[in-house]
Amino acid sequence: MQTKNKMPQGAQVRNRNSKRRYYTYRKASKKSQLLAPMDEENVKISFLGGMNEIGKNMTLFEYKSDMFILDCGLAFPSTELLGVDIVIPDFTHIVNNQERIRGIIITHGHEDHIGGLAYLLKKINVPVYATKLTIGLIKGKLEEHGLLGSVKLVEINPRDNITLGAFNIELIHVNHSIPDAVGLAIKCPAGVIIHTGDFKIDTTPVDGDMIDLTRFADYGKRGVLALMSDSTNAERPGSTMSESSVGESFEHLFRKARTKRIIVATFASNIHRVQQIMDVAAARHRKVAVVGRSLENLVNVGAELGYLNIPKGILIPIDDIGKYSDDKLLIITTGSQGEPMSALTKIAMGEHKKVSITPNDYVIISATPIPGNEKMVSNVVNALMMRGVEVIYENMYDVHVSGHACQQDLKLMLGIVKPKFFIPVHGEQKHLVKHASLARQMGFSSKNIYIGDIGKRIELSKSGIKELDNIPAGETYVDGYGVGDVGNVVLNDRKHLSQDGIIVVAATIDSASGYVISGPDIVSRGFVFVKENEELINSIRDISEKVIQEQYDRRYRDWNTIKTRLRDEVTRYVFERTKRKPMILPIFMEI
Amino acid sequence: MQTKNKMPQGAQVRNRNSKRRYYTYRKASKKSQLLAPMDEENVKISFLGGMNEIGKNMTLFEYKSDMFILDCGLAFPSTELLGVDIVIPDFTHIVNNQERIRGIIITHGHEDHIGGLAYLLKKINVPVYATKLTIGLIKGKLEEHGLLGSVKLVEINPRDNITLGAFNIELIHVNHSIPDAVGLAIKCPAGVIIHTGDFKIDTTPVDGDMIDLTRFADYGKRGVLALMSDSTNAERPGSTMSESSVGESFEHLFRKARTKRIIVATFASNIHRVQQIMDVAAARHRKVAVVGRSLENLVNVGAELGYLNIPKGILIPIDDIGKYSDDKLLIITTGSQGEPMSALTKIAMGEHKKVSITPNDYVIISATPIPGNEKMVSNVVNALMMRGVEVIYENMYDVHVSGHACQQDLKLMLGIVKPKFFIPVHGEQKHLVKHASLARQMGFSSKNIYIGDIGKRIELSKSGIKELDNIPAGETYVDGYGVGDVGNVVLNDRKHLSQDGIIVVAATIDSASGYVISGPDIVSRGFVFVKENEELINSIRDISEKVIQEQYDRRYRDWNTIKTRLRDEVTRYVFERTKRKPMILPIFMEI
Repeated sequence: MQTKNKMPQGAQVRNRNSKRRYYTYRKASKKSQLLAPMDEENVKISFLGGMNEIGKNMTLFEYKSDMFILDCGLAFPSTELLGVDIVIPDFTHIVNNQERIRGIIITHGHEDHIGGLAYLLKKINVPVYATKLTIGLIKGKLEEHGLLGSVKLVEINPRDNITLGAFNIELIHVNHSIPDAVGLAIKCPAGVIIHTGDFKIDTTPVDGDMIDLTRFADYGKRGVLALMSDSTNAERPGSTMSESSVGESFEHLFRKARTKRIIVATFASNIHRVQQIMDVAAARHRKVAVVGRSLENLVNVGAELGYLNIPKGILIPIDDIGKYSDDKLLIITTGSQGEPMSALTKIAMGEHKKVSITPNDYVIISATPIPGNEKMVSNVVNALMMRGVEVIYENMYDVHVSGHACQQDLKLMLGIVKPKFFIPVHGEQKHLVKHASLARQMGFSSKNIYIGDIGKRIELSKSGIKELDNIPAGETYVDGYGVGDVGNVVLNDRKHLSQDGIIVVAATIDSASGYVISGPDIVSRGFVFVKENEELINSIRDISEKVIQEQYDRRYRDWNTIKTRLRDEVTRYVFERTKRKPMILPIFMEI
Repeated sequence: MQTKNKMPQGAQVRNRNSKRRYYTYRKASKKSQLLAPMDEENVKISFLGGMNEIGKNMTLFEYKSDMFILDCGLAFPSTELLGVDIVIPDFTHIVNNQERIRGIIITHGHEDHIGGLAYLLKKINVPVYATKLTIGLIKGKLEEHGLLGSVKLVEINPRDNITLGAFNIELIHVNHSIPDAVGLAIKCPAGVIIHTGDFKIDTTPVDGDMIDLTRFADYGKRGVLALMSDSTNAERPGSTMSESSVGESFEHLFRKARTKRIIVATFASNIHRVQQIMDVAAARHRKVAVVGRSLENLVNVGAELGYLNIPKGILIPIDDIGKYSDDKLLIITTGSQGEPMSALTKIAMGEHKKVSITPNDYVIISATPIPGNEKMVSNVVNALMMRGVEVIYENMYDVHVSGHACQQDLKLMLGIVKPKFFIPVHGEQKHLVKHASLARQMGFSSKNIYIGDIGKRIELSKSGIKELDNIPAGETYVDGYGVGDVGNVVLNDRKHLSQDGIIVVAATIDSASGYVISGPDIVSRGFVFVKENEELINSIRDISEKVIQEQYDRRYRDWNTIKTRLRDEVTRYVFERTKRKPMILPIFMEI
């Protein structure tokens, strides 16, 4: 492996001062092919998250001895992960290779891209590179975890280059549902890889800053080895609507609401949405109050860093809403997904301390339910309507647009980047497969499309994509302060407990004679109303006593065997009587 | 209340032999108005289910001393009802008035209309009236519950009249996603109430039998006091597509699948869907195997009663699929909602005993996800695609149509029935509210529209709708054999157990001295990996021992107080250490 020496030295120093120069990978790789045809330049990619799932995006890039990490997100637990707060990637492979990690690049400040970062930085301390707003949001995370100050955070602008070992990476501005999002041009001697990050194409973005298609096209013109592109909306035809179309809907609805108090629920991270809501409120002479911790944070960070331009004098504390008439008020709130503990849900259920709902309220839910949240959102809509409130939700008017590119835009990206290989990323299998089929429609050959999976590690060179041995990857559950201490055994127990509860059979036994000297006592939780089922509980006690006694008579006192028999006998009896299978937990205390 | 005597005697004997005659309520009520203007004829309606919820439809109609029940369905438990199998209505009000119940009418054979019937019939034994297929499906239910033979089942045809006390009810044929569905014209001296049941307007139904709009219009012409109409699809614009359009999609897809084995998943009760699938299979010379218990039942009942016309020689046992090549096979299966225990899910996960999936399979999911099931369906789609299977799902092609009327059809029904009062039924608040707004668009005045709720009882007369005192109504949980023995205490315990598990603190105590003579033993389930957390468990033991001992030293031996303190201390310690709140269960055994 001599090729590294032949890598142009210039690669190490490219930065924001050399915007117009490109990494000369073509030359390098041609040379290496001549010198060592069997040892073609290659770059390796490992998928640690975000493939065959929505969330916890994390990818590892590797060229020879240098590695860097792209994004480190969290996923929200599916309903069967009882009691789990969040899910983060398995960092085993990273920790095993920590001396090779040159840095972490974050594409934007959404939880599914930054939510795992603090947990990772507790294990390896490497610099983190991101744009200004993203750094601002990361700081908040690190502060929560007591890591601020001990981690090097590097603020980078789009079109800037970062050198991480043999890699040189340029950030490219993209549109998304949070400002300051970027895609990447990842350059190394094996070629250029374009990673879009999460993106959409917004020709009329709220901040006026359209996705830098020119830069993507520049790379496309010069030759791209592989494109890794956001598949979230690959099932949706057409083009994604512009964020500014939402502003027009707000103007229309605000006019309709006239004498009513308006409450708008939206994602806490969507600064442009909040900007538009505030702008329309200002035009209609309404004061704005913000409810919900994450939204208050966003407004603070957004305003501080210059991403949110709050019209002068418009913002009032939530405690002051009583001082204004309904038609002079707008409340922006969290809870657009119907989250049970969110401000909007509390308002809808009449449980919010500071906002009481009346039929003179006009509620706009400026979001569509994320798959799985449909019922929760419906519950909130129903609760509001039961209080006589007019609610604008789901597809009524265009009060929400997606932050991800639809089919037409995805094809456009493929068409201008013109990669040799295409790797759809960020999505479930159905999204990846659909994205691949879009590429095939455009003439990409199936053998040049790679659908990856979490735990896969691939080697990418001009001659093809090769799967290497899998790496350790998967899910780490965070429950309270515990990271990874809840696994399948604990989850299966929780599942079992959640379905039919538990019956504890406790007995004190004379260790000399084997006699039961106290109990068995039967205590149950989550099984039946004990008071109404005394006979059943008594029968369980009788059976338990009999099992223990029989074992004693046999002079066979292996307590584990007795416990197993007791569990079996009680389980069988309870199932026959109730068709339920509570957990049976025998506790024998010896004296 | 003398009016009952003035009720025309003819009302008692109308039946299928007098199709062309109508109940003369107008005359009767005019008379009664003349005689007793202050004592206007009225009919009472009580909502026992299906209002502000999807499922467990049940309504009680009441005229003077006569009552009858319309439908008795179940609902599937929401995710927070841990361990609950099904939810049925609260029958308290019915049982309290059982001597007044003249019968039960069932509109069609779906679970949300018949699923609670067996539980009701265990409490009151009254005759059940329904059409042929519905009776066939009810029989299956009663057999499961050992009730067959002890209940009077009366088969009725559309346009037949049933006399139940002072009520005379005509069944009116409607289209729906199961054959033999009916709406009702409910006649009594207070007027005619039209109840649509679940319905759609299908101008090209598979069985050729279009909804009997003529009959609805006949009643409309003569004057209808109130319309109660299905609100399920009130949010959807336009008209519901015909079931036969699905057949055309199947023809197209079967041609595309050519050499592949086809697997179609659909709702077990949709006989017309199954009919169309079989017809296309026959035309394409494919044999048909059926997988999934509920679907096998349906095929048997449907064929036996003449609702399903199975092409000769087409049906093969699932064990024989190995004898045919892929292009000669079609498998119809349950699991179109991604239910974890269903045949399709098992097939997708590679766990089905008789059907192994290969990339030469072509899977059509002929259904749309019911709200809340989206993620489960996606999981199945993704699992199939990971095995290389082509999957047709959701809105790809028209492989599913709804069984419920959309806005255009709902307005048509309102327009031909022309009721004085309108009561939207069957739906969540958002559906009922939307349905009401459709009526207002058509010129109905808000004061003539009533949005009800479960537990409401109303009095309906020409002069208006009056709310009476609420009746007992709500949810009864069925868990295994237990009906109603799981309530909030048990469910809250299950919820608590599911989140962070349980810690049992067991100790044997000398009742004379108060000394702990064995233990405290700490046993946990669903909390943490005990092996990796020995120190934590040891600390819990130390704290428990200290609390018990302190109490002993104070010579204060109220065990409940000690248990409370122990729970508090351990809870606080565990939360500080882990940020979790497992259930703490102290068990003290005295000797």
